[in-house]
Amino acid sequence: MRYDIAIIGSGPAGLSAAINATIRNKNIIIFGNDLLSNKLVKAPSIDNYLGFSEISGEELKNKFKEHIESMGIEVTHKKINSIYAMGEYFALMSGDEMFESTTVILATGVEYTRPIKGEEEFLGKGVGYCATCDAPLYRGKKVAVIGYNEESEEEANFLSEVASKTYFIPMYKKDGLLRTESLLNESIEVINDRPVEIKGDSLASKVSFKENEIDVDGVFVIKDSASAKSLVPGIETDGPHIKVDLNMQTSIKGCFAAGDCAGKPYSYIKSAGQGHIAALSAVSYLDKLKLQQRKSSL
Amino acid sequence: MRYDIAIIGSGPAGLSAAINATIRNKNIIIFGNDLLSNKLVKAPSIDNYLGFSEISGEELKNKFKEHIESMGIEVTHKKINSIYAMGEYFALMSGDEMFESTTVILATGVEYTRPIKGEEEFLGKGVGYCATCDAPLYRGKKVAVIGYNEESEEEANFLSEVASKTYFIPMYKKDGLLRTESLLNESIEVINDRPVEIKGDSLASKVSFKENEIDVDGVFVIKDSASAKSLVPGIETDGPHIKVDLNMQTSIKGCFAAGDCAGKPYSYIKSAGQGHIAALSAVSYLDKLKLQQRKSSL
Repeated sequence: MRYDIAIIGSGPAGLSAAINATIRNKNIIIFGNDLLSNKLVKAPSIDNYLGFSEISGEELKNKFKEHIESMGIEVTHKKINSIYAMGEYFALMSGDEMFESTTVILATGVEYTRPIKGEEEFLGKGVGYCATCDAPLYRGKKVAVIGYNEESEEEANFLSEVASKTYFIPMYKKDGLLRTESLLNESIEVINDRPVEIKGDSLASKVSFKENEIDVDGVFVIKDSASAKSLVPGIETDGPHIKVDLNMQTSIKGCFAAGDCAGKPYSYIKSAGQGHIAALSAVSYLDKLKLQQRKSSL
Repeated sequence: MRYDIAIIGSGPAGLSAAINATIRNKNIIIFGNDLLSNKLVKAPSIDNYLGFSEISGEELKNKFKEHIESMGIEVTHKKINSIYAMGEYFALMSGDEMFESTTVILATGVEYTRPIKGEEEFLGKGVGYCATCDAPLYRGKKVAVIGYNEESEEEANFLSEVASKTYFIPMYKKDGLLRTESLLNESIEVINDRPVEIKGDSLASKVSFKENEIDVDGVFVIKDSASAKSLVPGIETDGPHIKVDLNMQTSIKGCFAAGDCAGKPYSYIKSAGQGHIAALSAVSYLDKLKLQQRKSSL
């Protein structure tokens, strides 16, 4: 089956796109996670989302959840690793599963964390952002997972089933503590230290810390948002942001972007507004496509 | 006194700009009316403003009102007729009162009603959009007020004090009835008929209806939103919309626009999002200006 609109990301931009595309009777799929937005739920108090004064991120997330649920929208809990423009449609890869959609709305947010030294240099040469995709390459080998969110623990669990040795390096805290409670496999070695550099010759082979280092064959860096260029090969960017016009159209026809990934300022209300624009632009694109197909079939 | 940011319009774009500029400690003034947005309060049910499902326009207006009140923002109930770029600041005219502001955010909405035949042709030649501004020209003369909202009755009251004869042609209904209950002066003649054309030679001299016509010296057409070009002389437009870039900057430095007046799609959430962007762009413009002034004073 082919969707009309696939939305990547369940933050305010993605959700706003989803409700507007649903109101316009489009067949949509929205990929995200149960928390909807890791950034949002961590916000202690939000006062600039018009209509809600002094609301916590958690409460605002619940309002969003109620809204989408009232419209029967369900978030698909899958991570999209790559999106390829196939001409008439887009192929969205999640591990070895593929989804098809005529249009795509990117609402992935932006990554705030700075890359570790060596991370970008060795990307594709021992460093990857998706364990589910690349795990088979590391059967019987040593891997390190540098995890910036809770989902990274699931990636570590998955890797530990194929790798000979799995290190887990948590980069996030919850209630002030480093968290590793979702790690299932006791063989996973947790390193409570901050990595300083990923080293190697032609391929990554070491992760170094202030005082020691570990030997590895592969390193997975698991963040909330993948870079746009690694997600959608060929898309035009401007620094960390996807280039868009006023209609939220990207450099790729049929592909739109909204929210933080489409540029500053970073805010929930701006993201929700752009999600709305992106949805209507996608709808108008779909309508034109239909008209063209009708004409050419006459 | 000179304001940092003057916001024209109290709909979602203007209010969102106001709360964000206030959070950024700017000295603002926002012009609008007590209903905040005539369009919003008439909406029976809104389902595309993320966070509120199936809310009435009236309720959403109340949420907005609570939000601005919680931040101490008061809407100034004055109508701005013209805005002039004076170099270092903008002069905002409301009748014969003047306000000064370093930056301006236009959040005026767009006018949905079609112009009456002859309205645009005779604009400035007997047809005007602001009775308060032009009333002195019609002392002892005959005027017609074509009113699209309740405020137009106040303009008719005002005109009737100077004109020899004032006709009032209501173009709006409330609870299904033509409303004229705020007309104070009994000399005002109400015409419950739809005007077909404004006629004249070099100047407007007649308003014609289906079956009869009236002789006039001037016609005031009172709508919710003035055209951008008549409000801000010299501003670049694209049809009924003000041209903006992704930062909501217009063709005039220091002048920003947000919401319906800045283009389609017309929606509350998009307007609120753009109001946020416009406020932050104005703040950043003000900061740069300050820096320049500091440098040049060294």
